[in-house]
Amino acid sequence: MATSNTDTKVMRIALDAMGGDFAPVNEIHGAIKAFEDFFADSNIEVIFVGDEKKINAALHQFDYSKLKYSIVHADEVITMHDDPTAAVRKKNSSLYKGLELQSQGYADAFVSAGNTGAVLSTSTILLGRIKGVSRPTIGSFFPSQKSTPCFVLDVGANIDCKAKFLYEFAVMGSIQIKNMFGVDNPRVGLLNIGEEESKGSEVLQETYKLLKQSKLNFIGNVEGRDILKGTADVVVCDGYTGNVVLKFAESFLGFFKSAVVSFSKKNIFNLAVAGIMKPFLKKIFMQFDYQEYGGVPLLGVNGVVIIGHGKSSPKAIEHMLKRAVEMVDNEINMKISKAINTDFFIDSER
Amino acid sequence: MATSNTDTKVMRIALDAMGGDFAPVNEIHGAIKAFEDFFADSNIEVIFVGDEKKINAALHQFDYSKLKYSIVHADEVITMHDDPTAAVRKKNSSLYKGLELQSQGYADAFVSAGNTGAVLSTSTILLGRIKGVSRPTIGSFFPSQKSTPCFVLDVGANIDCKAKFLYEFAVMGSIQIKNMFGVDNPRVGLLNIGEEESKGSEVLQETYKLLKQSKLNFIGNVEGRDILKGTADVVVCDGYTGNVVLKFAESFLGFFKSAVVSFSKKNIFNLAVAGIMKPFLKKIFMQFDYQEYGGVPLLGVNGVVIIGHGKSSPKAIEHMLKRAVEMVDNEINMKISKAINTDFFIDSER
Repeated sequence: MATSNTDTKVMRIALDAMGGDFAPVNEIHGAIKAFEDFFADSNIEVIFVGDEKKINAALHQFDYSKLKYSIVHADEVITMHDDPTAAVRKKNSSLYKGLELQSQGYADAFVSAGNTGAVLSTSTILLGRIKGVSRPTIGSFFPSQKSTPCFVLDVGANIDCKAKFLYEFAVMGSIQIKNMFGVDNPRVGLLNIGEEESKGSEVLQETYKLLKQSKLNFIGNVEGRDILKGTADVVVCDGYTGNVVLKFAESFLGFFKSAVVSFSKKNIFNLAVAGIMKPFLKKIFMQFDYQEYGGVPLLGVNGVVIIGHGKSSPKAIEHMLKRAVEMVDNEINMKISKAINTDFFIDSER
Repeated sequence: MATSNTDTKVMRIALDAMGGDFAPVNEIHGAIKAFEDFFADSNIEVIFVGDEKKINAALHQFDYSKLKYSIVHADEVITMHDDPTAAVRKKNSSLYKGLELQSQGYADAFVSAGNTGAVLSTSTILLGRIKGVSRPTIGSFFPSQKSTPCFVLDVGANIDCKAKFLYEFAVMGSIQIKNMFGVDNPRVGLLNIGEEESKGSEVLQETYKLLKQSKLNFIGNVEGRDILKGTADVVVCDGYTGNVVLKFAESFLGFFKSAVVSFSKKNIFNLAVAGIMKPFLKKIFMQFDYQEYGGVPLLGVNGVVIIGHGKSSPKAIEHMLKRAVEMVDNEINMKISKAINTDFFIDSER
């Protein structure tokens, strides 16, 4: 598998053209935009994986003169309702075929706005895990009062987590946030219900010890309020808690909209204020939309996989492709492997 | 212990006068306001528990002509930094003495803006648990898009929860929200990462079964986004997750303030918009301030205990006292005992 973008070698990104709710149009449109904005004159090529007819029909809706692409046909589609474990057996799906291209060395990365659970399970099976990584993980970027976001992981891939898993999430999260946002020596916090080392479950107390002994920049336990404050660059927690907080955060927009609507209905003055406020509020809440960061990486698998929201806009797809290229260029996985197996090594029993 | 407010019997509420960050002034002021606004011509009396001199000095800052009160002196104060387990041994503290008044039948309820962990542990020891209740719990009221709030419990009292505990939280939460907000047949949701019964940890799957078999109005699994949506009236989860979400929600105000400040600094027009928006935003975010609901009840102990935020304002204290009186009047504990032991009974092995 190619891991670096050199002048002589083509970097190929397989894109699940059937993944999102607006597939394949948003996928095609996003890829075209990526070539207009970022990949002009590059050695990058996108491989659309999915229904060839539908892909060609979508292509013809746009000017795709700048696009460098190929198409790999796939008959089947994994929907959002498909069970992730069953999806692994749908070998003619765009999701499976796209990942297979990477596992067989025909692509350097895979991008999908499809069924997250299915991407996770199929990636783990087809690509395997990076040596030393116990569990692949999905994180999410939260806005913070600092200039860079707070990276919370896991947000749903791993419900029950051992201390070792949480420690590995911290290692992978640190490498990701350093490479993606240029944060040197990222501050790592352990999500807990108090600052003291003795707080929380046994697993959290054990994780605290692992993190304290590591070479990571561990700042100790952090609380729910520290995510948006930006107290830490990387916050680790089990996937149940991370998922609850992520979905809670995403629901603020709807809550706020409904509050603004009932406020604006009270009188004509309020209606005017609401009108003035609207674009500003939209801007703040866009920060909670993880499409803005161009999807999130699946960390810990032996390959590059970017997962987007089902509702991904063309802009989100565009940024997911850009993110995938960056991850290949930055050799994130080599860095994770090195960190997990040597740099951050604590003891052989861990 | 008196459990009902009749014409002939005095209802006594013990108030931890030394509990909050602004004690005893806010406590005294809040009590005076309660008598002005709610308890005029009632048979209610407040017992200030704490340093007699300081209490008297605070009283003289106000017109307390409407107040019906007595003072029980307590030498010691449990601070926010005291370890909850150590606090149990501080028998001369206002917190301990106030709860002792209730356990010995001299008071019908206890109200404190002090150390939550200390109130929890001391209440459990001095008052005991309601028969059939495994763990006392603390919930919190979240604003929702519905007219009544969403009651999330537990929010920090119980880190590791068995299915039985979560089930009991659902029973207690339902009774509380019905009595406090007049919600008939409250909808109960189990906080999870997907709707399907098979989602989440083993404990959550087991809890799902218990709730489904019960007479509660169980609407199934709910996700993080459902709290603010108001999909359910009562949302149950372990105290770790509830605490993280609560503190995350409380931090939105700070995040938003900082976003508004940086927005208003951009130009004079933005500054004007920010000025117009401010009172409105304040109003929305006030909903996330649990003082507005007058503190939260400690459910499952054999008595009435209301816990407030350390920063409780006089208004918050006032509402906490009102809440305590309502809980005594509504005989919440008798209802919980009945529901846990008979009405919602599933099987003897539970």
